Amino acid sequence: MSRRTLSPEQLFTAACDGDRAALARVLSLLERGDAVAREVGRLAYKRSGSGYTVGITGAPGAGKSTLTSSLITHLRKQDLEIAVLAIDPSSPFTGGAILGDRVRMQDHATDPGVFIRSMATRGHLGGLSLSTPEAIRMLDAVGRQWILVETVGVGQVEVEIAGKADTTVVVLNPGWGDSVQANKAGLMEIADVFVINKADRKGVQETQRDIEQMLELSDLAHEAWHPPIVATIGNTGEGVPEMWDAVLEHRATIESSGVLKSRREFRLRAELREIVARRLELKAREILSGDHWDGLQEQVLNHLLDPWSAADEMLRGVGA
Amino acid sequence: MSRRTLSPEQLFTAACDGDRAALARVLSLLERGDAVAREVGRLAYKRSGSGYTVGITGAPGAGKSTLTSSLITHLRKQDLEIAVLAIDPSSPFTGGAILGDRVRMQDHATDPGVFIRSMATRGHLGGLSLSTPEAIRMLDAVGRQWILVETVGVGQVEVEIAGKADTTVVVLNPGWGDSVQANKAGLMEIADVFVINKADRKGVQETQRDIEQMLELSDLAHEAWHPPIVATIGNTGEGVPEMWDAVLEHRATIESSGVLKSRREFRLRAELREIVARRLELKAREILSGDHWDGLQEQVLNHLLDPWSAADEMLRGVGA
Repeated sequence: MSRRTLSPEQLFTAACDGDRAALARVLSLLERGDAVAREVGRLAYKRSGSGYTVGITGAPGAGKSTLTSSLITHLRKQDLEIAVLAIDPSSPFTGGAILGDRVRMQDHATDPGVFIRSMATRGHLGGLSLSTPEAIRMLDAVGRQWILVETVGVGQVEVEIAGKADTTVVVLNPGWGDSVQANKAGLMEIADVFVINKADRKGVQETQRDIEQMLELSDLAHEAWHPPIVATIGNTGEGVPEMWDAVLEHRATIESSGVLKSRREFRLRAELREIVARRLELKAREILSGDHWDGLQEQVLNHLLDPWSAADEMLRGVGA
Repeated sequence: MSRRTLSPEQLFTAACDGDRAALARVLSLLERGDAVAREVGRLAYKRSGSGYTVGITGAPGAGKSTLTSSLITHLRKQDLEIAVLAIDPSSPFTGGAILGDRVRMQDHATDPGVFIRSMATRGHLGGLSLSTPEAIRMLDAVGRQWILVETVGVGQVEVEIAGKADTTVVVLNPGWGDSVQANKAGLMEIADVFVINKADRKGVQETQRDIEQMLELSDLAHEAWHPPIVATIGNTGEGVPEMWDAVLEHRATIESSGVLKSRREFRLRAELREIVARRLELKAREILSGDHWDGLQEQVLNHLLDPWSAADEMLRGVGA
């Protein structure tokens, strides 16, 4: 039987049995955000919960992909089954051939122990904030122990997503100003581990000092976990084992303290809220397209009515 | 009477009369997103519509702020009253002192013809997609003819916002790969004018060719407006008059063709939809916080029930 004729359930079963093409297809089904996606999502939901997600984020150019590539090599030496979800538009993982040769990811492309999936940062029904957790859950459900999520650490939605991993690694570069930008972008609050990548360049100590100062100035300094700072060279893999040790240490800490459980519950509650809001939005769009509401829109377009008063009127039906 | 004791309406009137401190205060009121913000927003809404917004976007490091700074100098020579809205976390405009000296924006800080406002990319009620159009409308309402909006061209929300200006300038750099990344980030579709900044570096022609090829491959090549490509050197201001001429030409074209009017209507419809969605999100929070639904949430957290079935159940009451 060809994969094209398999039902969503059969595809999911095949993906769980290690069929990579089937896994790619169920992920595509998920991205459609329709009734079939719901069916697949339900199957994944039941089986998920044992995988662990590590977010790798930072500004474009920080060397996240090269670092991720070195990390994959390190993890594969330990025979860990991993998945990489790249939702960074500047990542070579999402671009394929054009920039691919820069990070020797071809080493991993043929390794059955590594599954790489890129997600578009646009065009998905429901947006990244709904499609990302669903994809992660699917990779978890089919048995990947570690799910590395590479996100660009710029942008409202992206930083929010980066902060939703079990452990979040923030990648900076040596030199003046990088940590200031990271702070402004909202990366300091979500960092569990700091990495100063490209540590063969000068300025490592200054960056380390900057990070420490910012941690001290924030409330984070008083929390149980003090984010360690690791220096790495993504190209050579130097420092990558230490970075991974920091991730493992963070995992052990939050697992034993119960923080992991409460983090995951918090995320799930947020996702549930997002799903409910999305459904309400569909309902609202239904209302907005009704003839009765077109008049209100026209009044707003002609500046006869302001948008907030129009919204009041439109939402009377759903009590919002 | 101190400004502290002025009513929102009095503050708005003062801002319209050119009081910069009052303008700063009404913008802060707007950002609160509460009932007072609505009041101020309504006042601005009635008076807005004559200003023109120019979006300046591109990856961090493309030199947007330096270019914006040179553009301000160019526009001030023509005595144009302008406002700059910086919503780019990597922009020195949003950072003030630390990176400020790099772009000589101090030249403009004391010029009453220039009003610079930075917006945080996080923390606002309603998020950037609601706070940005409100701030633009306010700057428009108080009489700024030109509103320059600097946004980072990375991230779902940010690229969406960048595409909502009347004219959008996409800033790239010479060399291989930059246009590929811009394409992946979704910047090609929103560009009305391309700028190859730092044109004193090599690779300008290659980048120009890349952009032209991508335009040809897209549907955009068949539209009435073919985005021109201008080379600039932000540091020296070279090419900035040509860039501005391209903006003016685009404005004239979309004004006479009616595209400007339909773009603005499209944006307003989107904003209205967003306001409605936000209200529905608040409603979703309300729904989820009721005692009645705690049991359902618990079932989801314990993986006994999937989030979509839980949402079905929760929304039965509002018919969504």
